[in-house]
Amino acid sequence: MDKLIEEKFLSKLSRYRELSIDYLLKNIPDKEPKQYLYDLVTIYPKRAGKGFRPSLCIAACKIFGGSEEQAMNSAIALELYHNAFLVHDDVEDESDDRRGFPTLHTQYGVPIAVNVGDAMNVLSIRPLMNNLTTLGPDLTWQIFLEIEHMVTESVEGQALELGWRKDNICEMTEDDYLRMILKKTCWYTCIHPIRIGAIIGSEGKVKADVFNRFGYYIGAAFQIQDDLLNLEGDKEKYGKEICGDILEGKRTLMLIYLLNSVNKKEKKFLSSYLNKPRIERAADETEYIMDLMRKYKSIEKGRVAAKNLAGAGLKEFYTLFSAFPETEEKAFLENMILYMINRDK
Amino acid sequence: MDKLIEEKFLSKLSRYRELSIDYLLKNIPDKEPKQYLYDLVTIYPKRAGKGFRPSLCIAACKIFGGSEEQAMNSAIALELYHNAFLVHDDVEDESDDRRGFPTLHTQYGVPIAVNVGDAMNVLSIRPLMNNLTTLGPDLTWQIFLEIEHMVTESVEGQALELGWRKDNICEMTEDDYLRMILKKTCWYTCIHPIRIGAIIGSEGKVKADVFNRFGYYIGAAFQIQDDLLNLEGDKEKYGKEICGDILEGKRTLMLIYLLNSVNKKEKKFLSSYLNKPRIERAADETEYIMDLMRKYKSIEKGRVAAKNLAGAGLKEFYTLFSAFPETEEKAFLENMILYMINRDK
Repeated sequence: MDKLIEEKFLSKLSRYRELSIDYLLKNIPDKEPKQYLYDLVTIYPKRAGKGFRPSLCIAACKIFGGSEEQAMNSAIALELYHNAFLVHDDVEDESDDRRGFPTLHTQYGVPIAVNVGDAMNVLSIRPLMNNLTTLGPDLTWQIFLEIEHMVTESVEGQALELGWRKDNICEMTEDDYLRMILKKTCWYTCIHPIRIGAIIGSEGKVKADVFNRFGYYIGAAFQIQDDLLNLEGDKEKYGKEICGDILEGKRTLMLIYLLNSVNKKEKKFLSSYLNKPRIERAADETEYIMDLMRKYKSIEKGRVAAKNLAGAGLKEFYTLFSAFPETEEKAFLENMILYMINRDK
Repeated sequence: MDKLIEEKFLSKLSRYRELSIDYLLKNIPDKEPKQYLYDLVTIYPKRAGKGFRPSLCIAACKIFGGSEEQAMNSAIALELYHNAFLVHDDVEDESDDRRGFPTLHTQYGVPIAVNVGDAMNVLSIRPLMNNLTTLGPDLTWQIFLEIEHMVTESVEGQALELGWRKDNICEMTEDDYLRMILKKTCWYTCIHPIRIGAIIGSEGKVKADVFNRFGYYIGAAFQIQDDLLNLEGDKEKYGKEICGDILEGKRTLMLIYLLNSVNKKEKKFLSSYLNKPRIERAADETEYIMDLMRKYKSIEKGRVAAKNLAGAGLKEFYTLFSAFPETEEKAFLENMILYMINRDK
């Protein structure tokens, strides 16, 4: 990615992020109970997230002729929902760090974190209701249906992943992974943000299904890149424990590649490591798994998969958007695809 | 409560319960992932709950001239939401039993239970959307606003209770307790079920705020009775560990009475017991707290408080409903108040 283009892209991403986080924080009630609820609701949103989801929604809305203001309520609902999902996901994965700081349950305990996540979910409903004034009843209703589908897909994907871990499933194919990640990540990270933005911008005229494949490609590329950073990123930039995914037994594409490459003895070791409670997984065992990943080139293969998916996303982008004028937002969306697999945090 | 009247009441309660649970179960998607999601979603609803919330909603709807069918979508949304709340509440309280069987997280682990609770929350949205066909857009929207308020109050009440436990607060008054329980229990257990039923039955014409005080009285009476059963009920009937609340450090009205009655030495013991992790609370210590409750008559005082609240609820009932014809549903609602404080499960 060209340095100048990247800077322009990052500055737009950061502007969209700030716009939506400011508006999101204004939507958090300024009332009691603060100490164990509303103050905690703002913790993850205030940390340096990337703001992908609101940015995708706003950009798609503008490409289809809408304004930032029209997209804003839906954009912050997406971001609130995402943060709620992270709070519960961190509990479910027993993660230590999030965005460079301890996870919410590490700081406040599981009970309060679960309740804060629930609060963030209900808080995401209010901006969707506020759409009524800005977008009218038909679009408001349509967006509700989008959100309901989005949340359903996410909990289904999460159930698959948690089930694999609980039953210590070690026989999975790349297709199993992609189906899971479509549900768990792609719908809420890419497909629905773009669909909702396009629905608002086009005043409900767009056939939103045309974006599903595009959002799937870039969402899957995004998730694989995220898991690659977890394996070999810079903790300062990435904001999570490096190798945390291995410690958590998370079924990443790289782990699945590895499970399908190793010999019998190594497979037995992997399966027994993954079967242990997290606390019993020793550092040298985790390091050995990293060695195996290097030996069997699981990380390189993951990088190729992410690049291929991003390439397919780019091709889909040209099919979908070539007839649109060359606006800043169109360039932003195109660069988002490249950034997703080139980012280092 | 007269035996015949009670039997009639119980048979109506059980009919409403069955109607709504049947309809609720029909609304659970028959699709994958079943093993770690949709099958688990049905576990709590299938256990022998009492069905208070859907029954209150249906009865209020009929009193105001509506039909069972009109109330049904909202009734099952209330029940689904209640069950979602229980799943997360059990995780937050580290409870062992629910309705006579192990809690969901005890059976499937915290990660899967948190996700199943999230799924139940999103599943409760669909029946509310189905109101559009049966009730039209205005009522559908009004009920959404009711539900949003209801969920907000519940997470705020839950935050208060969890915060008290986390900081081991031992200085609370009866008023603090009642404020907490209004938020945590009364809105979603009584106030909103009645409000929503009345809104549907009256086609949106009723001023729903008139029911707030009534629902508060009977909701608080209900919660105190529930906590009394936890202290001295029959485990077979009640379906939870007896004294589980003490073990969990739950700030019940009886515990608050006790904290305000004991001498310095006993207070120090209580505070240190409540400050320990649950696992370190010994059985003989828990038994000693029961002795203290007997010594200081905390249980009797709790029983009096529940009876007074139910009495106030009954008075409010006559003010609100005396002008209504003497229908079966009106009698059902009246008897519900008596049953709430006389029930043994």
